[in-house]
Amino acid sequence: MSRFAPPGTAHDVEEGLAFTPKFDTDGLITAVVTDSKSGDVLMVAHMNAEALAKTIDSGEAWYFSRSRRRLWKKGESSGHVQRVIELRIDCDQDALWLKVEQQGAGACHTGRRSCFYRAVPLGQQGDVRLEFRDEERVFDPDAVYRAADKA
Amino acid sequence: MSRFAPPGTAHDVEEGLAFTPKFDTDGLITAVVTDSKSGDVLMVAHMNAEALAKTIDSGEAWYFSRSRRRLWKKGESSGHVQRVIELRIDCDQDALWLKVEQQGAGACHTGRRSCFYRAVPLGQQGDVRLEFRDEERVFDPDAVYRAADKA
Repeated sequence: MSRFAPPGTAHDVEEGLAFTPKFDTDGLITAVVTDSKSGDVLMVAHMNAEALAKTIDSGEAWYFSRSRRRLWKKGESSGHVQRVIELRIDCDQDALWLKVEQQGAGACHTGRRSCFYRAVPLGQQGDVRLEFRDEERVFDPDAVYRAADKA
Repeated sequence: MSRFAPPGTAHDVEEGLAFTPKFDTDGLITAVVTDSKSGDVLMVAHMNAEALAKTIDSGEAWYFSRSRRRLWKKGESSGHVQRVIELRIDCDQDALWLKVEQQGAGACHTGRRSCFYRAVPLGQQGDVRLEFRDEERVFDPDAVYRAADKA
């Protein structure tokens, strides 16, 4: 059973103080994660009701992995835990914004600080080619995740 | 037919320069929108392939409304157009990040600058009560949308 109440009227959802997160048909809500210092978007992930409750209770970010179909605490393998500085909900309560202090060097499993390390140039005709931005790896994912598997 | 190629291998998707956005089963991709100056998250929306193509071509943000089941240009009613300063894609190419210059006072249909005007306090036991942050309305939504309907 979810700890969160179901949404009320549109006015209640938008202007009220009752927290009634709207989970999608898979039971998930989108979570945008930004770095509390730089303001950069680090990643976009999803939470189910349990991950959201654990995040609120612990002040550390928990998510639900759609590919692995399971709850996970960010940093459980890598040690790169996210301490939540502030959690916000949007007008229709179907998206969360986490401002976090990222422990360790980066948030992305590829070893980058942010998952958003490529830009889509605007105004290009035909095939769109990406351009790297902030491509530098700040940790070695092979070493970090291999070490975790052995732990 | 989509202008965008289908995803290749996981390595191509994460490390390549081919832009192969991954749309969900509804044909949508999540778009996080931040203010290019303040870095604040303004809104979370969705794009279909057509909205994404129009955004790339025009440099202004187009979305797909899930509730109205139609393409919309941000600001088409309110005049609050979003000029895209930079567009990024994440590691697995299933989320977009738009850094925008927000025309007009605010991005939220409730009249606020951002849709994220309420915080979820951490560490509360039992029922979670929201707290307003940046609650101030920077425009009058009734006046703005009523004027648009008459236009």
